[in-house]
Amino acid sequence: MREVVFLIQTADRKGLLAEISGFFYSSGFNILQCRQYSDVRTERYFMRIALELRPEVTRRRLEEEFAGFASKLGLEYSVFYQESKPNVAIMASKTSHCLYDLLMHADEGDLNCNIPLVISNHPDLEYVADRFNIPYFCCPMEKGKKAEQEAKVIDLLKSHRIDLVVMARYMQILSDDFIAHFPLRIINIHHAFLPAFQGGNPYERAWERGVKMIGATAHYATAELDEGPIIEQDVERISHMNLPEDLKRIGKDIERRVLTRAVRAHLEHRVIVSGRRTIVFS
Amino acid sequence: MREVVFLIQTADRKGLLAEISGFFYSSGFNILQCRQYSDVRTERYFMRIALELRPEVTRRRLEEEFAGFASKLGLEYSVFYQESKPNVAIMASKTSHCLYDLLMHADEGDLNCNIPLVISNHPDLEYVADRFNIPYFCCPMEKGKKAEQEAKVIDLLKSHRIDLVVMARYMQILSDDFIAHFPLRIINIHHAFLPAFQGGNPYERAWERGVKMIGATAHYATAELDEGPIIEQDVERISHMNLPEDLKRIGKDIERRVLTRAVRAHLEHRVIVSGRRTIVFS
Amino acid sequence: MREVVFLIQTADRKGLLAEISGFFYSSGFNILQCRQYSDVRTERYFMRIALELRPEVTRRRLEEEFAGFASKLGLEYSVFYQESKPNVAIMASKTSHCLYDLLMHADEGDLNCNIPLVISNHPDLEYVADRFNIPYFCCPMEKGKKAEQEAKVIDLLKSHRIDLVVMARYMQILSDDFIAHFPLRIINIHHAFLPAFQGGNPYERAWERGVKMIGATAHYATAELDEGPIIEQDVERISHMNLPEDLKRIGKDIERRVLTRAVRAHLEHRVIVSGRRTIVFS
Amino acid sequence: MREVVFLIQTADRKGLLAEISGFFYSSGFNILQCRQYSDVRTERYFMRIALELRPEVTRRRLEEEFAGFASKLGLEYSVFYQESKPNVAIMASKTSHCLYDLLMHADEGDLNCNIPLVISNHPDLEYVADRFNIPYFCCPMEKGKKAEQEAKVIDLLKSHRIDLVVMARYMQILSDDFIAHFPLRIINIHHAFLPAFQGGNPYERAWERGVKMIGATAHYATAELDEGPIIEQDVERISHMNLPEDLKRIGKDIERRVLTRAVRAHLEHRVIVSGRRTIVFS
Repeated sequence: MREVVFLIQTADRKGLLAEISGFFYSSGFNILQCRQYSDVRTERYFMRIALELRPEVTRRRLEEEFAGFASKLGLEYSVFYQESKPNVAIMASKTSHCLYDLLMHADEGDLNCNIPLVISNHPDLEYVADRFNIPYFCCPMEKGKKAEQEAKVIDLLKSHRIDLVVMARYMQILSDDFIAHFPLRIINIHHAFLPAFQGGNPYERAWERGVKMIGATAHYATAELDEGPIIEQDVERISHMNLPEDLKRIGKDIERRVLTRAVRAHLEHRVIVSGRRTIVFS
Repeated sequence: MREVVFLIQTADRKGLLAEISGFFYSSGFNILQCRQYSDVRTERYFMRIALELRPEVTRRRLEEEFAGFASKLGLEYSVFYQESKPNVAIMASKTSHCLYDLLMHADEGDLNCNIPLVISNHPDLEYVADRFNIPYFCCPMEKGKKAEQEAKVIDLLKSHRIDLVVMARYMQILSDDFIAHFPLRIINIHHAFLPAFQGGNPYERAWERGVKMIGATAHYATAELDEGPIIEQDVERISHMNLPEDLKRIGKDIERRVLTRAVRAHLEHRVIVSGRRTIVFS
Repeated sequence: MREVVFLIQTADRKGLLAEISGFFYSSGFNILQCRQYSDVRTERYFMRIALELRPEVTRRRLEEEFAGFASKLGLEYSVFYQESKPNVAIMASKTSHCLYDLLMHADEGDLNCNIPLVISNHPDLEYVADRFNIPYFCCPMEKGKKAEQEAKVIDLLKSHRIDLVVMARYMQILSDDFIAHFPLRIINIHHAFLPAFQGGNPYERAWERGVKMIGATAHYATAELDEGPIIEQDVERISHMNLPEDLKRIGKDIERRVLTRAVRAHLEHRVIVSGRRTIVFS
Repeated sequence: MREVVFLIQTADRKGLLAEISGFFYSSGFNILQCRQYSDVRTERYFMRIALELRPEVTRRRLEEEFAGFASKLGLEYSVFYQESKPNVAIMASKTSHCLYDLLMHADEGDLNCNIPLVISNHPDLEYVADRFNIPYFCCPMEKGKKAEQEAKVIDLLKSHRIDLVVMARYMQILSDDFIAHFPLRIINIHHAFLPAFQGGNPYERAWERGVKMIGATAHYATAELDEGPIIEQDVERISHMNLPEDLKRIGKDIERRVLTRAVRAHLEHRVIVSGRRTIVFS
């Protein structure tokens, strides 16, 4: 079965569900799943609708027909075909845990994507990429040459037709310019329960503050550091016995599962961004 | 704003969403929320649709119109008006924790219901009901007189026009006949994570088995003990240090929050039963 | 059985466990439980030791003997007798959920304390205290008369020989002077997962930030607002569908269980404070 | 620093803590950590004590001295040296998730062990072991030749001097004879929250029963299937939307983290078994 997913948002108003579902029904599509949400605060309407794409309907015809309908109703939307696997690039620095977890899940068939390359500013993790037979590109960050390094990375991403960039503990702050090349197409993992402990050394600071739980946050990277729309968060209970190095180890397991869940949600086209908030259909 | 909720289920087939949402839209209703689910295993379709009831539409007209439409499509459904608070009876025995939690939440406005009476087979908890100014009926269970006792309780429930019976640690097994009077209208709390530890003394048995988490389960009461459709479950981590009496104390807090959540889900018309399973719209 | 608990802390050094346990053993005490912790970062040693107090040993003799021993070893300590129930004052403002939860748990025998009074700056919650037959003192906060109001409250607390003050959503900032009267004897509940969302309106801000979990934090009140040593925290998963008013309702259940757990830990003499951190023996 | 850990259990009686800690102190050992627990139900006493091993003390001398002391006091005990890494064998069948997680954590330095081999009854997972440069032994299970296959596996385990066998979704029931070779040295992962759903197909049965959470259980393998002492359990919330295949996917992540945590607890010498229960020091 060929499946197509529309992610739609628009100003909320009466009748949207009936009109949109009616459009697809009368065009002969079978609606497999439809999830919607009206945000009464911002008066926005959000929909994820999954359809069965019959062989006799071309993508082109579907998109042309829907484009006309959508423009009449003022819908913003994206369309995704299950049969087209997105290309994902993983960026990492020196710690392997998130990288491993993503590669392992992809290997087990639990992430619907291709991973054509891993990019790092250090050589340390090449052996991990090697183990999964994935090309590893080391783009070191030389002092005062951030723009050059980023240009090289952007080139790699563009030439591999990357749909999603996953920062799996890539320890460099991306420039606004870099981010602008991949709007809402970069997912970052922050090793704290945002907005607690923004910035550096969160585990050390968590220990000092004496918190009783630590967490991690996966979010889209935006121009403001650690301020992008949050996709997924999780926490784990700790105790006074846990030193900062324990928090780091415990945190690794939280980080990897939060990042992998966020990437899966994105790849399954279940995330719509609205301002600083995300709608994540479960 | 007057709100009306339809809970619908039927055999799954193409076009249901468009047809049902189209019906309400063309009848001039504003759809506030619509959640649906197609179970591909059982090929059943489930919908919860919340509408704004305009002043000029009587309940009667709405129900007559929908009845015709539903019969044409073969829909099973129930309809609920937000403005009609359901009547809830709480049944308890000797432990107060679930009773307190329900009364407290109702008192704080977090359960949309009236609680016209508390029924018990013991006099012990009268003071709790008193504190919340709720009539307390003690119907003791005399040996060999279960049928008489149940008849008295059923009378009380019927005469108070009870919509939902909550067994808040009522330590008597209800007869099939009793249950048949309130089909899927009795919620019970079991003090274990079902299907683990069905039957009696779950905390003692949990200690003996050395489990690392204990839980509680809220379910509709059916003819088979501890086998009714589950509405809500939760667990808490325990350790070897916790004796059975600790498990009992920890369990009390799990039981009360699981039961209160289940009752809220039912009162908000978010639960549809399908065989042994429940669809709980969040 | 009469139980006595010592909470001890001192600079860490070799042999403390053997020396302290040896002291009690050779003095003929049965050690019921002993939990200890060496913080290698701060080089502090912490111990909670519970002993059986035989009838022939007076409190006075025990304390005199231990005082000599402790001064030789440089131990800071407190001693608590299970048979002496601490006196707890609850302070609240207008929302009843934490107050109810504490009174309910005390009523069920799950908090080892007396609650001789409830104090509020508003008259709203008198009916709650009344239901549990606890005197309610309303000390309204008039503009510019904070010092007078606090003096009145301090008088009430002192005259009732209060051992612990629980701020169960008391919506006034206590002055440094007030706090100095009850050092590490005031537990506050903050309605967010500190250090996220310090200060006011945390649920509104959590909604705006689009977090995927919300939490609550119980901590000792100190001169710096929301910065005192944390005793307990917990979180719950939320979704984009939850409006700020939902967060408030969900948060109420987190707040009450976090506060009650923290109060229980304190009353069971399981908490030792060390700088900004707490050691909470489970 | 060289660390040595004693795991001790004995019948509970007065003075054990003072005597044991006194023994080590007077022998000149620095106690790094001491955790103990008295089970008042079974009247057993359990202790984990970690000491610093000074260069001038040989293992032999320590063990001889302690043996005499222990025999006088009637202590059962084991002794472990941090510097001796245990040898762990992983057994798996066709699904890679637990195997990957263990290898990944070992690779990251988060499991203190050597993994000299992976054993399977199928050839499917050889590539996974290969990626981590670990020898893979395929011992197929031919009909009617279980004893021969097990003999071969036992040979492999003995010749590699294996201290711990981890059944990472090895889908064969071990014979009592096999288990007797490695008493409390085999950890198994069951893909359900035991004692719920013992036996086969737990995810299918969980779906049918309509539970709202699924879990996994790591336990020592004993002669009775799924009845061995539990080391670790965890659960995750699911919903009506999750089909059995979703439960399987969600379950994989629970299984791997539960198994890895249990293996870590065992390797850190934090687990003592007492009948059907485990004491797991955190």
